[in-house]
Amino acid sequence: MTRQQLFEQIIAKQSFLCIGLDSELEKLPKHLLDHEDPIYEFNRQIIAATHDLCVAYKPNLAFYESQGWRGWLTLEKTLALIPDNCFTIADAKRGDIGNTSTQYAKAFFEDMSFDAVTVAPYMGEDSVKPFLAFENKWVILLALTSNKGSHDFQFAEQENGEPLYEKVMHRAQTWGSADNLMFVTGATHPEKFKDIRRIAPDHFLLVPGIGAQGGELEKVCEYGLNDHVGLLVNSSRGIIFAGSGEDFAEQARAAALEIQGQMAQVLAQRFR
Amino acid sequence: MTRQQLFEQIIAKQSFLCIGLDSELEKLPKHLLDHEDPIYEFNRQIIAATHDLCVAYKPNLAFYESQGWRGWLTLEKTLALIPDNCFTIADAKRGDIGNTSTQYAKAFFEDMSFDAVTVAPYMGEDSVKPFLAFENKWVILLALTSNKGSHDFQFAEQENGEPLYEKVMHRAQTWGSADNLMFVTGATHPEKFKDIRRIAPDHFLLVPGIGAQGGELEKVCEYGLNDHVGLLVNSSRGIIFAGSGEDFAEQARAAALEIQGQMAQVLAQRFR
Repeated sequence: MTRQQLFEQIIAKQSFLCIGLDSELEKLPKHLLDHEDPIYEFNRQIIAATHDLCVAYKPNLAFYESQGWRGWLTLEKTLALIPDNCFTIADAKRGDIGNTSTQYAKAFFEDMSFDAVTVAPYMGEDSVKPFLAFENKWVILLALTSNKGSHDFQFAEQENGEPLYEKVMHRAQTWGSADNLMFVTGATHPEKFKDIRRIAPDHFLLVPGIGAQGGELEKVCEYGLNDHVGLLVNSSRGIIFAGSGEDFAEQARAAALEIQGQMAQVLAQRFR
Repeated sequence: MTRQQLFEQIIAKQSFLCIGLDSELEKLPKHLLDHEDPIYEFNRQIIAATHDLCVAYKPNLAFYESQGWRGWLTLEKTLALIPDNCFTIADAKRGDIGNTSTQYAKAFFEDMSFDAVTVAPYMGEDSVKPFLAFENKWVILLALTSNKGSHDFQFAEQENGEPLYEKVMHRAQTWGSADNLMFVTGATHPEKFKDIRRIAPDHFLLVPGIGAQGGELEKVCEYGLNDHVGLLVNSSRGIIFAGSGEDFAEQARAAALEIQGQMAQVLAQRFR
């Protein structure tokens, strides 16, 4: 999916919501555990109930890998369920030396046809560029993550006084463009979005951390929006585990609808 | 496997060689491609031919993930082939927020019983600590990697003048000890091993980059050795793809034997 197509989806659906399919087996509604593949059945119902309210789905690989090879099969089957008009993100946080990153890229872009994969920047240019070589595919690079540990290294001041995450964002823009590179910037740091937009005015930002992690949508939008919207705001547990009974999919839809409603208001003000 | 047990294996085998099972399908000997599971058969023969010459095996996950769920099954079957006296490393370079890292840790430590997993430090403490909570299991944290891209961020000077990789090594020692934490330090930076040993005198170092990437064993040993040896030196392609014919396993053994011979000489000088 291209940047323009993603923008058009956002306008059509009045939503820049990304739903994180962090479908942890232990947290699934109990009645699903008799199913042959409970995670698949859970995802199937979640996707059926929410796909008109979001523009992206983001399975976190950890919750599939923890089920071994069966989990990978579940992931492949899940991906096949997602409608073509939804952007798909493999939240994998991969990154390795050149030829090895290419193997990861093939796994996610060719074998499974994800639109995007999250990548960790620590190993530098030759660990990121192989992912950028695939046409109409995206790297979403970790910049400023939403967790407490983001303070350990990402804010560390560099020789010129800028924090590491800004250096990452500056450097990465010499590797890719706003048409194939996004950044992860956590909603738990809303005061940084002004700086982030100064550094990367055109890039889409994938924003985790609203809901369960405490970030607020309004603050993120204040500085985060650009002329292509430029935000994919993710919610995982707050939506998919909104309910735990037989009506879990309806509960998930209600939770998604609430966020989508807020997004529609924001979009109405800026994109008439 | 504990640090003491690993040390004893090194002395017993006169080797601190780690063999990287980067078993890329496209590079396998052609006669194996008719096999039902070519990567498994390749690994089976490599392990049979080399397990007395090395103390560790390190499959890089990328080469298994690129085969989808079948690749994960191959990885699980490969792990079952490795003798108990060999240390096993999932070269996965994972790292995510707390509960998600725990899922990755379960996948590698419980479901597959790897001894160790490589972890990327960018997301900080709460992305690394969940891996350290498993008894007798190890985190091998990326510090100074062997690739060209290591110069992008890892050498970046911090406010106190130390490069980022030193900060990572300092900080990580408040999370784990020499009994459950190792560092990845590339053989392509042999001039840095004196500094590295000053910062982490007791920790094991996993050293990629000899052979195909151009690092030299002798230089690494000069400053890298400590009183538990403290080095696992990895070679991947230089060993497993030493030959490409029907005698590929013999060729791999010959390549491993050459490195093991050099290691035995080093050990003879330091550990009588």
